[in-house]
Amino acid sequence: MTDQSGLKKRFAVILVRPESPENIGLVARNMKNTGFEVLRLVQEAGINPKSRRTAVHSRDILERACLYADLKDAVEDLQLVFAATSKRRKNFPSISLKEAVAEMFRFPASARIGLLFGNERTGLTSEEMRCSNFRFMIPQSGRQPSYNLASAVLLTLFHISTYENLGDKERAVVKEEPLSRKEQEECIRLVLDKLERKRFIHETNRLHMTEMVYDLFGRLTLTAKDRKLILALFSKTISD
Amino acid sequence: MTDQSGLKKRFAVILVRPESPENIGLVARNMKNTGFEVLRLVQEAGINPKSRRTAVHSRDILERACLYADLKDAVEDLQLVFAATSKRRKNFPSISLKEAVAEMFRFPASARIGLLFGNERTGLTSEEMRCSNFRFMIPQSGRQPSYNLASAVLLTLFHISTYENLGDKERAVVKEEPLSRKEQEECIRLVLDKLERKRFIHETNRLHMTEMVYDLFGRLTLTAKDRKLILALFSKTISD
Repeated sequence: MTDQSGLKKRFAVILVRPESPENIGLVARNMKNTGFEVLRLVQEAGINPKSRRTAVHSRDILERACLYADLKDAVEDLQLVFAATSKRRKNFPSISLKEAVAEMFRFPASARIGLLFGNERTGLTSEEMRCSNFRFMIPQSGRQPSYNLASAVLLTLFHISTYENLGDKERAVVKEEPLSRKEQEECIRLVLDKLERKRFIHETNRLHMTEMVYDLFGRLTLTAKDRKLILALFSKTISD
Repeated sequence: MTDQSGLKKRFAVILVRPESPENIGLVARNMKNTGFEVLRLVQEAGINPKSRRTAVHSRDILERACLYADLKDAVEDLQLVFAATSKRRKNFPSISLKEAVAEMFRFPASARIGLLFGNERTGLTSEEMRCSNFRFMIPQSGRQPSYNLASAVLLTLFHISTYENLGDKERAVVKEEPLSRKEQEECIRLVLDKLERKRFIHETNRLHMTEMVYDLFGRLTLTAKDRKLILALFSKTISD
C-alpha cells in the first residue's frame, strides 16, 4: 500500500450519528492505517477521551474532523456518495463492496467521494440514503451481527487502497465528472416538483416514488450535460 | 460470502497474550461476520463482561474458545501456522497477506490452519514466531500505528473468505498435506540437535542459526515424505 495521500484526500469518511466514542477513535486509526485523512461527523454524540484513547497515533485525524448538524451539509461539496448498508432497502438497491469500489474508480481522479456509515444500531435512515448515489453491502456470513462500525469502515478503505494500487489498465476511467451533491439534489428536487405538479406523485405514492427517483438519479451520477438534458426532457414531456 | 462453515472449521484464530478484553470480544464478532468459529487464546489476560459486550451476537464463539498456557500446545494439532506481523523480522522473512491467503489454499482442503496474532503492544516474540510456518504482513499506509488487533484479524479472515469463494480453477490444490505442527517441531528439533552435536550450531550463533532453521523448515511445510528424506539426508551427510 503505497502512500498516495494526494489521491486519498478526495475521499471523506462520513459517520452519521455515531454513538460510541471508542468507535470514532477506532475509525480514525483505521483511516490512518489505510492512508485516508478526511473525517466528517454528523450529529456525533461526542468525541471524548475514550475516542482519543482508541485513536492510537491518529489523533490528528480526530482533531481535524469536521462536525455537521445536517447530513446534507456534510455531502454538498462532494460529487459521489456511497452509503454502506447491512440490509436490503426496498427503494434503494445496493451493490457489493467490490462493485462499489470499481465504480468509484470509473470517475476522474479529481472526483470528490463521500463514504457514508450510519449509526451503530440503526444504520442509515431512508431519508439519509437519499444523500447517496450508490448503496453498497459488505459480504458477510449469516445475517447477524452486522459488522462493527469501525470494521465496516476498515474493509471499505482497505479495498479502496488495494484497488488504487492496481495498474491503470485494470481501472480505466470511463465517466465524466459528476455535479456536486448539492447540484444533484437541486436537479432531483426540480424533477420531483414537476412530478408533483402533474400529480404523478401524490399522497399515496409520495414516499415510494420519491425514493425511487432519488435512487435512479443517484445512480445516474448526474453531470452538467445530464442535468441540461434531463431538465429539457422534463419541460418537454411534462410541461406545466 | 456463502456459508461454508465446514471449510472454515479447519481454521483456528489464535490470540497470543491478548490484553484487552474488548479486543477479544471484537475478534469474536469479526469471526462471526466472516464465518469462522474456532478461537484459541494463549495466556489471555481474562475474558470478562467487557469482552461479552463487544462480542455482539458472537458470545458462542467466546464460550467455546479454548485457553492454553503455552503456544506450542495451541498449535500442535494444526498443520500450517501463519503468523501476522507488523514489523520485518531478521530471521523470519514475511510474505504479504494476499500471498499468505493464496498459500493457504495451495494445500488440501483438509489441512488444519492456525492464524497467529500477537499481543496488542508487543506483537509476537521471536520464540513465538518459531511456532509458525509463514509470517505475513498486512499492507498499510505509513509505519505507525499498526492495525488494531481486531482489525488485523478482520482483514485476514475477510481475505480468506473472499478467496474461498473463488472458482476452483483460480485456486488449484498443488501441495501435499503437511505433518502436524507437533511432528514438524519434532523434526526441526532433531535437525537442530544434530547440528549442535556437530558444533555447526554453537554458543555464538545459536539464536541466529536456530531461527534460520525454524524459518526454513517452517516454509517447507514438511510432509511425512519430506521428514523421511530430511532425516535420511541428515544422518548421511551429518553422521554422528
